[in-house]
Amino acid sequence: MKRAVVLLSGGLDSTTCLAIATRRDGYEAHCLSFAYGQRHADEVEQARQVAGRLGAASHRVVRMNLEAIGGSALTDHSIAVPKGRDEASIGAGVPITYVPARNTVFLSVALGLAEVLEAEAIYLGVNALDYSGYPDCRPAFVEAFSQLAKVATAAGLEGHAPRIEAPLLQLGKAEIIRLGVSLGVDYGITHSCYDPAPGGLACGACDACLLRAKGFADAGVADPTRYVR
Amino acid sequence: MKRAVVLLSGGLDSTTCLAIATRRDGYEAHCLSFAYGQRHADEVEQARQVAGRLGAASHRVVRMNLEAIGGSALTDHSIAVPKGRDEASIGAGVPITYVPARNTVFLSVALGLAEVLEAEAIYLGVNALDYSGYPDCRPAFVEAFSQLAKVATAAGLEGHAPRIEAPLLQLGKAEIIRLGVSLGVDYGITHSCYDPAPGGLACGACDACLLRAKGFADAGVADPTRYVR
Repeated sequence: MKRAVVLLSGGLDSTTCLAIATRRDGYEAHCLSFAYGQRHADEVEQARQVAGRLGAASHRVVRMNLEAIGGSALTDHSIAVPKGRDEASIGAGVPITYVPARNTVFLSVALGLAEVLEAEAIYLGVNALDYSGYPDCRPAFVEAFSQLAKVATAAGLEGHAPRIEAPLLQLGKAEIIRLGVSLGVDYGITHSCYDPAPGGLACGACDACLLRAKGFADAGVADPTRYVR
Repeated sequence: MKRAVVLLSGGLDSTTCLAIATRRDGYEAHCLSFAYGQRHADEVEQARQVAGRLGAASHRVVRMNLEAIGGSALTDHSIAVPKGRDEASIGAGVPITYVPARNTVFLSVALGLAEVLEAEAIYLGVNALDYSGYPDCRPAFVEAFSQLAKVATAAGLEGHAPRIEAPLLQLGKAEIIRLGVSLGVDYGITHSCYDPAPGGLACGACDACLLRAKGFADAGVADPTRYVR
């Protein structure tokens, strides 16, 4: 069976991406999650549950202390996560929740795993429409990494570098949710909050919560998220 | 003072690279080392000593469990490090000591640190002549990563992505050693062995030891390495 590496945070986007890889595109999925010193470290355990529920063939967790780099509200706990921003603010500029080069780092490790597993694709759930203004969620980034993959590994030298698949790139949040629902995804097991309360309850006010809630409303799908308020 | 991030293993190449960044190119150097489950984990402590001796402004160690990925004799301790190979064998094909996508991962984290420090360059000590057949030590790799850096970060979006500097790329091992000696590098504090004995003594037989020893011989410089035999 053909193999793919799927970057999985257990959030709405990456969970949809996993369903696309397995249920639509027919891949044996090998999931990869990261414990990188993030504020919302619970996501790693939730990713494990998502991988199990969606029938992933394997799930690896790579730990790295990106707090040694800092520069983000997600890894530097002295920087507050912005709350209650309006849509125009969320779309304008690079926010403080941006983790410098995070998707580059995650894709690089995925590239190594793809080499070991001889996987033919790497899936990641970035999208460039209803997104948070992160530079590494844009088509130009995905394209540049695809080119890098062709020269960075032994598989690339042999002409079979993994394809970088970003199937959500041009979809809005509501479209992503509708696609996931059509593939049988239960979004009740996913989470998106950057700053969850104890027990994993979503704050309802960070950029990730606001984009997610609007996506469910726009899609006409009941929001299964458990909020703190 | 202008800043650079320097990838530093404490080996011969990366130590020379640090000396080039500081003593030749005039950068304030911020060093970055990795504890990635490598067999020769002592290198991290040695890198710290090298950073101190060469006057680095800072030294960070990022830990990551690349043994979760495996696929290399350096991270999978059940795979033996090849010993006593001749020069033709060392240059032919990708060896089992290749860690899949390692330089891509290291450069990605360096890219994040460069963003946080507003560094204008990232130095890495790859070389494509007297090398071990690793795909991520070639000019095409360095060029592709340079392109990626321009679109992967907020600094890149603003038109000042860090340059990827690989000053050893086209130098032979003997030339690297002569350059380092001219910059005052004491190679006695560096190490290269993939499989050191207790006490940090070099095995003298792995690819890294053989390339290093030949470099000193060809350069006409006394080899300061402490070998096990």
